[in-house]
Amino acid sequence: MDKTEVLIVGGSAAGLPAGITTRRQYPKARITLIRKEKQALIPCGIPYIFGTVGTPDKNLLPDALLQKNNIELSIDEVTSIDKSNKTLATLSGKTWGYDKLILATGSLPLVPKIPGVNLKNVFAAKKDVDYLKGLSAELEVALQGAKSVVVIGGGFIGVEFADEFRKRGLDVTIVEMLPHCLQLVYEEEFSLIAEKKLADRGIKLKLDSSVESILGTEKVEGVRLRSGEVLKADLVFLAIGVSANTKLAADAGLRLGPQQSVWVDEYMRTSDENIFAIGDCAEKASYFTKKPLGLKLASIATREARIAGANLFQLRRKNDGNVGTFMSSIGDSAIGAVGLTERAAREAGYEPVIGNAAAPDKHPGSMPNAMEMKVKLVFDKPTGVLLGGQVVGGLTCGEVMNILATMIQKRMATSEIATFQLGTHPTLTCSPIAYQIINAAEDAEVKRSS
Amino acid sequence: MDKTEVLIVGGSAAGLPAGITTRRQYPKARITLIRKEKQALIPCGIPYIFGTVGTPDKNLLPDALLQKNNIELSIDEVTSIDKSNKTLATLSGKTWGYDKLILATGSLPLVPKIPGVNLKNVFAAKKDVDYLKGLSAELEVALQGAKSVVVIGGGFIGVEFADEFRKRGLDVTIVEMLPHCLQLVYEEEFSLIAEKKLADRGIKLKLDSSVESILGTEKVEGVRLRSGEVLKADLVFLAIGVSANTKLAADAGLRLGPQQSVWVDEYMRTSDENIFAIGDCAEKASYFTKKPLGLKLASIATREARIAGANLFQLRRKNDGNVGTFMSSIGDSAIGAVGLTERAAREAGYEPVIGNAAAPDKHPGSMPNAMEMKVKLVFDKPTGVLLGGQVVGGLTCGEVMNILATMIQKRMATSEIATFQLGTHPTLTCSPIAYQIINAAEDAEVKRSS
Repeated sequence: MDKTEVLIVGGSAAGLPAGITTRRQYPKARITLIRKEKQALIPCGIPYIFGTVGTPDKNLLPDALLQKNNIELSIDEVTSIDKSNKTLATLSGKTWGYDKLILATGSLPLVPKIPGVNLKNVFAAKKDVDYLKGLSAELEVALQGAKSVVVIGGGFIGVEFADEFRKRGLDVTIVEMLPHCLQLVYEEEFSLIAEKKLADRGIKLKLDSSVESILGTEKVEGVRLRSGEVLKADLVFLAIGVSANTKLAADAGLRLGPQQSVWVDEYMRTSDENIFAIGDCAEKASYFTKKPLGLKLASIATREARIAGANLFQLRRKNDGNVGTFMSSIGDSAIGAVGLTERAAREAGYEPVIGNAAAPDKHPGSMPNAMEMKVKLVFDKPTGVLLGGQVVGGLTCGEVMNILATMIQKRMATSEIATFQLGTHPTLTCSPIAYQIINAAEDAEVKRSS
Repeated sequence: MDKTEVLIVGGSAAGLPAGITTRRQYPKARITLIRKEKQALIPCGIPYIFGTVGTPDKNLLPDALLQKNNIELSIDEVTSIDKSNKTLATLSGKTWGYDKLILATGSLPLVPKIPGVNLKNVFAAKKDVDYLKGLSAELEVALQGAKSVVVIGGGFIGVEFADEFRKRGLDVTIVEMLPHCLQLVYEEEFSLIAEKKLADRGIKLKLDSSVESILGTEKVEGVRLRSGEVLKADLVFLAIGVSANTKLAADAGLRLGPQQSVWVDEYMRTSDENIFAIGDCAEKASYFTKKPLGLKLASIATREARIAGANLFQLRRKNDGNVGTFMSSIGDSAIGAVGLTERAAREAGYEPVIGNAAAPDKHPGSMPNAMEMKVKLVFDKPTGVLLGGQVVGGLTCGEVMNILATMIQKRMATSEIATFQLGTHPTLTCSPIAYQIINAAEDAEVKRSS
């Protein structure tokens, strides 16, 4: 048996920063990270392998970060945990002892139970280099042939893959069960803008549509919708969501939560105080309602890693729940959502008041490459506190979402945002007079008092 | 005599938003704005007229905003204020009565007292459409000839004009009195990066150098430095700073402050409670020390406008001093500074501790157009509170500065920033693991405890 002080299972967006944080907070600890994959992929970069980056090899988490932080790496698969003896066993036959264990086992793509789902050329976003190389190779073949791809699921992952496939010149159709793409995060008016941008790029949308079966003999040939319509397809991509990878935790007798993920407290401890769980495998709660929340994002995983890594031997950081900051791009446009939508605010018991503003993201608007940025902010009417925001515009939207995320976490209200000190520049931002966040706050403040 | 309720003098980055805020806060007030200029320029857009936007006509504040907000516009020049009778007189012979007066008279470029400064083709950044059209025309002439421009002053305005002149293919030299460009805002290491970027673009720098005289008979022909060196110049651009335009206020007996600007209280009221002053003509104080501060920025002017406009008939908003958020670009790079530098923090009595981080601004770093973004944060060691930040990177730096500005105003500390909830996306931001603001905070937190 080999004994380490901190043992981390999983080496992606949760496991790696957990190791780095542990090293920062506990400089002398022996830290060991076990992961299955010879090479670890950057999870959010996966959609961009196909059209933008070119190959999975250019989308790897650098192992140099492990060496730099003196974290031992073992490529192996954990098969069981014995929490009473604080040991675990691996596929290679090894036994590891630990003082503290961090589970960062991630999630697996959901595979719908429909006929044909096991046909050749049905893919999903598996975090596996060889698997993605296979998808890449089949894309090359499809590009020689009829070039049709059907993406099942119109959430962020589906939209991103569709956009990348389209960049390669494929004929792409998204099939979404709900009335709109991105509907779980966006309000209708923003979903409509995103759908327009997808359509402008030549991506076809089948909304309010379910897939009955995937057609083909050996390889995929098409997709049949419930409506009876048949779509031609050389390749099908599944993007209907992911589920927490909890097998190891459940087998060890750790408690699962209502979202069928590993239950954790606000310090990221599981039901066993020496075992922490972080990232996609761990249960999440809402910042606003403290109720269970089905979010799985790399940014959340790394935050949980920074909390768990600091708490291993002393409780130093708390998780106050998830605001939820989403962002994505369609061509040169970007879209983002943070916190509560108007509808979600109402459902959570708030009385929402809305502030809207739109203006170019450079100034004057005649600057080259200036794009309209539209902002909708949701405030709590009685207190004026910011609850959420939705943004569509150009490529600076990403950091604009992070301004809003900060304002939400600091519970800033309409008047404080209206007089918030910001910087502006012709080549970098909207003008100070038209700055969208400020004007949306002013708009809402007037509505609050009326 | 014509009587209005709210009279605003000046129609630029302070006057216009003061009118809009007044309309929002006092929907029924009669509001009148008097300005000299037939057309009002977007002040921060002025450097970009020459290379990027093409003509002053494409850099105008739209008067439609006045109409939309039911603000009357009078093109006229105010000659005197009678504050005891609450009236003012104009060049056209009119007398206006007011209940509340807002002075937004701006600033004027400083002209150094050196021989030759009145020669033809010596220009400065005057906010005057016809004057700038003249500069534009002379640039065209210079482009036909020897194409040499000397910019006197290496602050943000000097650097921006130099970069624009260079875009047009001119031979550009910046003469800066201090040892480095941008030295009043940046620490040396960041000034050096900016200077490298300027040099890479072919802009010549004469640092630690003063101009003794501008040479020429009728038109500029050159510039003589104190060192005796003579630089050839078809055109000289003065960018040594601006001074508050206080004549009207001083003549009316309003108190001036230590920076020779109009004294104001935290509600933006002058020494006369019915007269407010905002923007470049008004005195500024530091957010950190409350001491006088020589900042003149359009973003500060609009903020003061939003404070004054809300306070006219009831005190609703306070000015807690200026954080100071600067940003600019050199080619495709951007640079920014907010709050205190390490040196300024020490001078203000803090014990600074520094956090550094650098990473690509997209992820993976192999994404097209990814650029390294370098962040230096200054924290107060005992409390961990963020005091300032300096950033250099790509075009998303602008909104990154606004994240930092928010964090400073909300007094966020190292550990809170380290677990701050952010969103990330491959095409829009750094990776969640390497996100620079968070990693700089983690870096500083470790140093605080050591």
